[in-house]
Amino acid sequence: MLSRSSDQTLTDQLAGRFAERIRSRLLPPGSRLPSVRECARRHDVSPYTVVAAYDQLQAQGLIEARRHRGYFVREPRPDPVRARHAAAPSPGPGRSSAPIDAATLIRGMLQRMPRRDGPPRNDPGLGVLPQSWLETSFLGAAVRRVTTSASLHALSLQYGEPAGDALLRRALSHKLADLDIRAEPGQIVTTVGATHALDVICRTLLRPGDAVMVDEPGWAVEFGRLSQMGMRILPVPRRPEGPDLAVMEAYCRAHAPKLFITVSVLHNPTGGNLSPHAAHRLLGLAEQFGFHVVEDDTYGDLAPAHATRLTALDGLHRTLYVSGFAKILAPNWRVGYLVAGPELVERLIDTKLLTTLTTPSILEQALAHCLEQGQIRRHAERVRERLDAARSRAVQLALAAGCRFAAEPQGLFGWVDTGVDTDRLAQRMMDEGYLLAPGSLFHAVRQPSTLMRINFASTQDAAVWEDFTRLRDSL
Amino acid sequence: MLSRSSDQTLTDQLAGRFAERIRSRLLPPGSRLPSVRECARRHDVSPYTVVAAYDQLQAQGLIEARRHRGYFVREPRPDPVRARHAAAPSPGPGRSSAPIDAATLIRGMLQRMPRRDGPPRNDPGLGVLPQSWLETSFLGAAVRRVTTSASLHALSLQYGEPAGDALLRRALSHKLADLDIRAEPGQIVTTVGATHALDVICRTLLRPGDAVMVDEPGWAVEFGRLSQMGMRILPVPRRPEGPDLAVMEAYCRAHAPKLFITVSVLHNPTGGNLSPHAAHRLLGLAEQFGFHVVEDDTYGDLAPAHATRLTALDGLHRTLYVSGFAKILAPNWRVGYLVAGPELVERLIDTKLLTTLTTPSILEQALAHCLEQGQIRRHAERVRERLDAARSRAVQLALAAGCRFAAEPQGLFGWVDTGVDTDRLAQRMMDEGYLLAPGSLFHAVRQPSTLMRINFASTQDAAVWEDFTRLRDSL
Repeated sequence: MLSRSSDQTLTDQLAGRFAERIRSRLLPPGSRLPSVRECARRHDVSPYTVVAAYDQLQAQGLIEARRHRGYFVREPRPDPVRARHAAAPSPGPGRSSAPIDAATLIRGMLQRMPRRDGPPRNDPGLGVLPQSWLETSFLGAAVRRVTTSASLHALSLQYGEPAGDALLRRALSHKLADLDIRAEPGQIVTTVGATHALDVICRTLLRPGDAVMVDEPGWAVEFGRLSQMGMRILPVPRRPEGPDLAVMEAYCRAHAPKLFITVSVLHNPTGGNLSPHAAHRLLGLAEQFGFHVVEDDTYGDLAPAHATRLTALDGLHRTLYVSGFAKILAPNWRVGYLVAGPELVERLIDTKLLTTLTTPSILEQALAHCLEQGQIRRHAERVRERLDAARSRAVQLALAAGCRFAAEPQGLFGWVDTGVDTDRLAQRMMDEGYLLAPGSLFHAVRQPSTLMRINFASTQDAAVWEDFTRLRDSL
Repeated sequence: MLSRSSDQTLTDQLAGRFAERIRSRLLPPGSRLPSVRECARRHDVSPYTVVAAYDQLQAQGLIEARRHRGYFVREPRPDPVRARHAAAPSPGPGRSSAPIDAATLIRGMLQRMPRRDGPPRNDPGLGVLPQSWLETSFLGAAVRRVTTSASLHALSLQYGEPAGDALLRRALSHKLADLDIRAEPGQIVTTVGATHALDVICRTLLRPGDAVMVDEPGWAVEFGRLSQMGMRILPVPRRPEGPDLAVMEAYCRAHAPKLFITVSVLHNPTGGNLSPHAAHRLLGLAEQFGFHVVEDDTYGDLAPAHATRLTALDGLHRTLYVSGFAKILAPNWRVGYLVAGPELVERLIDTKLLTTLTTPSILEQALAHCLEQGQIRRHAERVRERLDAARSRAVQLALAAGCRFAAEPQGLFGWVDTGVDTDRLAQRMMDEGYLLAPGSLFHAVRQPSTLMRINFASTQDAAVWEDFTRLRDSL
């Protein structure tokens, strides 16, 4: 809400808020701003303040007045790189290219992360667990262990191994064995988070114009990166038991895709797990049509160990495995990894070298110690128990608020049908200080949606749902 | 040298040594192995041992026997990704594409970094300062400051700012001002080392097939990355005063390049600095033909502050600036940064998000403290003094060994004409345990060269040059 005690005038605050929303594409080009009267009412300011704010936005080139029709968000000035993507080959019949503003949207989400010195935020749209859930004492102890003078110098003053810290790769090899994935340390490559692992794999296995299958709904950063790389994105509808195999087969016959990138366990945003039968059939398709499967197991630590992994079935033949430590431990450490068959590993390390040379050993080795001592496994168990409790509270509240779950509630995220357009709802919620993740964000081509992704950890308070209900009903 | 006290048999040791050399392309496909008799003599083993070792290599598919002609390194099995690059558009008249094995070669160099528990290595080909030169007490103190419990959690448990740690960007803004580069913290984006900064820039400004000018001789990772991205590489000869502007102008007229990537200060490998006049004219070309210039200032800390930077002249209009902390402080921390004009920064941050999301704040903020307290500036001064002394010793020894400097000795690297083929010399030196950086490594298209790059810090001992002279004369 606007604050009368702020250093900024109300006009500046209001203009700034709209400017942020326009830049983050929550107000996309061509959309209409509220009328002066409506805006004044909603923000409890005088119409004069609103006119002055709209004037500022006009002067900044962000909006334009259309005679007798009101104020509209302007098209951004032409940008050669983005225009080029818009002109990339269409990914399929009737579809234009992936949304060009995925990065912008994600940026908005990252910047609204909970702050240490403020109250915990109840943002339904958060992509992570609240910071307090990630706190452990063992992380600090592990850091002290790797930053004694001798260790700090040994781990800092040379570039380090191209594949990544050897202790971490050994510890990961043990961890993977618990998931029935047999991988030697030599088949593991550390990366700057799982995002970098996916990037290294795509750069190694794909060239511009290649067709790539992805889960839909899915994760916007994935769409954004593939789009920026000039790939043809083939969105595969995600069903309760896994990807729609009939659609995949049709894609294979029509487009000969090189890769399928999928979250098999606790899929983002639906929370679904791949069934063993679907996994088996999917690998059959991969064999038949000769594509690789990248299994993104980012949320794996939040799931029981017996959840079906494609990589465990396939044995790193057609699969590559990706995961990291961002979801339950240390998002900012950016430690991730990829696992691949022996015939691919060297090429993947080459690509890692070309993108970042090596990765920081200090952080990797600290995590190795935590893994080897079982601390991360026990921490993950505690987080899962806490999340189970939060989920059952949040589900009750969501149902009581008249929402419907479009997928069985599991893991961190709920995929919720609100019955109203969630792009519009997200804007109204933002007015009240809430971040919402509208369904449109999770599609390769942005489209209106009544769905939203909720984070069970940040929606277990009744107050969020009271505000939600009030704002939804006011639309 | 082979060791009779090793766990491995002499045969295994010998086969392993050749296998490593073949994989790292020091023995490129098609090259001939020494005759059995010559090899036995050189390694002081029986001919039987050599035959057994060559048999092993044949069984591994690495070499083949050609009747009456001897043993030859086999062509690697076809690799779809690499073959594709070989078929990429030719970068210019009479040239084939950039070497596809750059990453493989660099990997070999990284893996031979000096080890803490061994004696310091006198590898003429090292790309970094000896580890002992990088040791400081302030790095440990800075780490302790950012890893107190509260600080560790604050800097670890949320993703962090997309542009990078705010304290580091502020400190860098001050550091840049000392170089006459005016950049607000908002124009600075932290990256996973300078390598990642260059990658983010190329991905943001280029699309496959675009023409890019680079220094030649130049840095192999640069050639390798641009080649992997499908760019057309236009190598610009590097003269004592800077790039050959006539060649650049001809490229501009013929190929309309989008970018010029250059090391203006202490160029790798020649050590040359761009003259103010050449800098001014280069920026004129950039203006006339509408390309951007990426100034890679990786070695800037080893040069006097008054060295001419393109970015200082241009004011981030057509230039982007890249640097990091790998050369004088903490190579494995992988902290680098890029600086760009306000109209480009947001797009560059978007690309960073798509490649790694964010970067580790702990390491960034520790460096911020070191920078703000002037510790890095003073440390750089000490390193420069030490390097000056090493350089004058190494230059004397090189000249006494009959070498000629192809460029004025400055900074970390000397560009030395040996009078013999340095690919062959590098193999002989490796037999004796030395890493050499042959001139062929620094060309967009690998070609024979009598030049080599030496590291002044690791060539100041007479013993290196005695071995060098003996092996060179034996060729």
